[in-house]
Amino acid sequence: MGIDRALLGLEVGDDGRWAFEVVPRLCRTDGRFYGGAAVAAALTAAELATGRPSLWSTTQLVAAADLGERIDVAVEVVASGRSIDQVQVRGTAGDRLVFAASGSTATPRAEGMSGRGRAMPAVPAPGECTTWLGPGDLKAGVVEDTLPVGHHLVTESRAAPLLDEDPTRPGRFALWSRLRWDVLGVDPPPAMTAATLAFLADLVPVAIARACGVVGAGTSLDNSLRVGEPSDGVEWVLVEVDAHVAVGGYGHGEVDLWSEDGRLLATGTQSARLFDLAGFMPRRAPGTGGRPAGTG
Amino acid sequence: MGIDRALLGLEVGDDGRWAFEVVPRLCRTDGRFYGGAAVAAALTAAELATGRPSLWSTTQLVAAADLGERIDVAVEVVASGRSIDQVQVRGTAGDRLVFAASGSTATPRAEGMSGRGRAMPAVPAPGECTTWLGPGDLKAGVVEDTLPVGHHLVTESRAAPLLDEDPTRPGRFALWSRLRWDVLGVDPPPAMTAATLAFLADLVPVAIARACGVVGAGTSLDNSLRVGEPSDGVEWVLVEVDAHVAVGGYGHGEVDLWSEDGRLLATGTQSARLFDLAGFMPRRAPGTGGRPAGTG
Repeated sequence: MGIDRALLGLEVGDDGRWAFEVVPRLCRTDGRFYGGAAVAAALTAAELATGRPSLWSTTQLVAAADLGERIDVAVEVVASGRSIDQVQVRGTAGDRLVFAASGSTATPRAEGMSGRGRAMPAVPAPGECTTWLGPGDLKAGVVEDTLPVGHHLVTESRAAPLLDEDPTRPGRFALWSRLRWDVLGVDPPPAMTAATLAFLADLVPVAIARACGVVGAGTSLDNSLRVGEPSDGVEWVLVEVDAHVAVGGYGHGEVDLWSEDGRLLATGTQSARLFDLAGFMPRRAPGTGGRPAGTG
Repeated sequence: MGIDRALLGLEVGDDGRWAFEVVPRLCRTDGRFYGGAAVAAALTAAELATGRPSLWSTTQLVAAADLGERIDVAVEVVASGRSIDQVQVRGTAGDRLVFAASGSTATPRAEGMSGRGRAMPAVPAPGECTTWLGPGDLKAGVVEDTLPVGHHLVTESRAAPLLDEDPTRPGRFALWSRLRWDVLGVDPPPAMTAATLAFLADLVPVAIARACGVVGAGTSLDNSLRVGEPSDGVEWVLVEVDAHVAVGGYGHGEVDLWSEDGRLLATGTQSARLFDLAGFMPRRAPGTGGRPAGTG
């Protein structure tokens, strides 16, 4: 959790709350507070309040916050068991509710069942992949790296071409991503945590727009993260992003986070209000309809 | 929303709140309040409070409620835009918080993008499938139909064998499900709604246990539902359930809800505390590990 506090700049505030300032690395490139940082803060605060690792969080993004604002984070433990706590977390800027999260922290049970329900996609190793240049790169070549504000200041992402591309999943794409611990002054690079995974995972709207045939992005309504296998020794994370469905400018999708050796570190979902990044792109996908059920 | 109120027995309560009683059809077979009914109530109350259709809800299941208890449901609109409202919903029994939900209701925008990111699995039509007998049926043949309390009183489910079964997804299975509107005294059967979809969708823990090689189920920590394509004319819903990952007795998974003609009506996720239904089953799956990333 020390690493998460370093990433977020989280400090002990009043009344046992925590607080942090919206600094450039915690923003989107437009200077507004980044949803991936909100869920990272909710996951970290839940861990600090309960002393257990985070299991899941759904963080609803209620209002914008701007560069330089101070966010107070309060945790309420609403249920507590032998190996699990349920929490609600609220992030506020003055009187304004910025985010509200539900979630659990849990201690794994030695006799509890473990397993994995899906397999990592085949992609080249991070060393074989080249820099990802932002959503536009998927078709249009927009360069985010020159922007002075944004979470890209402390992350690095490389486009990871899917070797088993599936035509029934038109939104899906993948990146290798890592935290720039050198920029954050942390050496050697620490293991990933729930919060750092969440910080890398906020890309789902890009996949949803792709499934609509649009170079687009979105304003996230929530960021949900569910934590899986241990991430010890992990530096590069495969961020596999996929679309579920969109109707009338609102849509949903998923992200799976993998280690290089095939551990499923976490999965995430989110809903978003979608927008077009390139007005010249067609608004609708070519037919990607589901196969009908067998007749009979 | 009238149909949802009929299913739930939702009545206008004090101070513009809503309330309902935990009747047998809103329970699990053990007589405790059913998570699928909690998210159905949260989705319906959000629609009643805002006048828009539900887009998504994450409903955290905080405490049990018993048969005969009265649940009060209060909605707070925390943000409101031209086409979307963000809400928080609390369900309480006396002073006890039973569930707490975050979510949005949204009016589709005529110019907004639409698309689908995945395809319906190939399965036989509902008329070709036979009654699903509960989780144990997957391997052991437990019969739920004789139990006097439970949501199976107003639902019907048939096992839908996947014709494209994928060995990398060991938890995945599918059912055709519908509401028993005849039992509920509603004729002709109405279209599905967000709430009725949620009521059918609460099966994810069964898939997670399957991916662990266990005939099991779970206590849901949350029920999340994200609403997709219009469900007009839909009676039978294909409930495609899949596992993400489990560690130390806690796990996560997903459900996709399809119409017979391949519309993706909604997707859902949840986290759960997992338990074994049949002590004689092995606790761990045979190797289902992910493929490692390409070497290089």
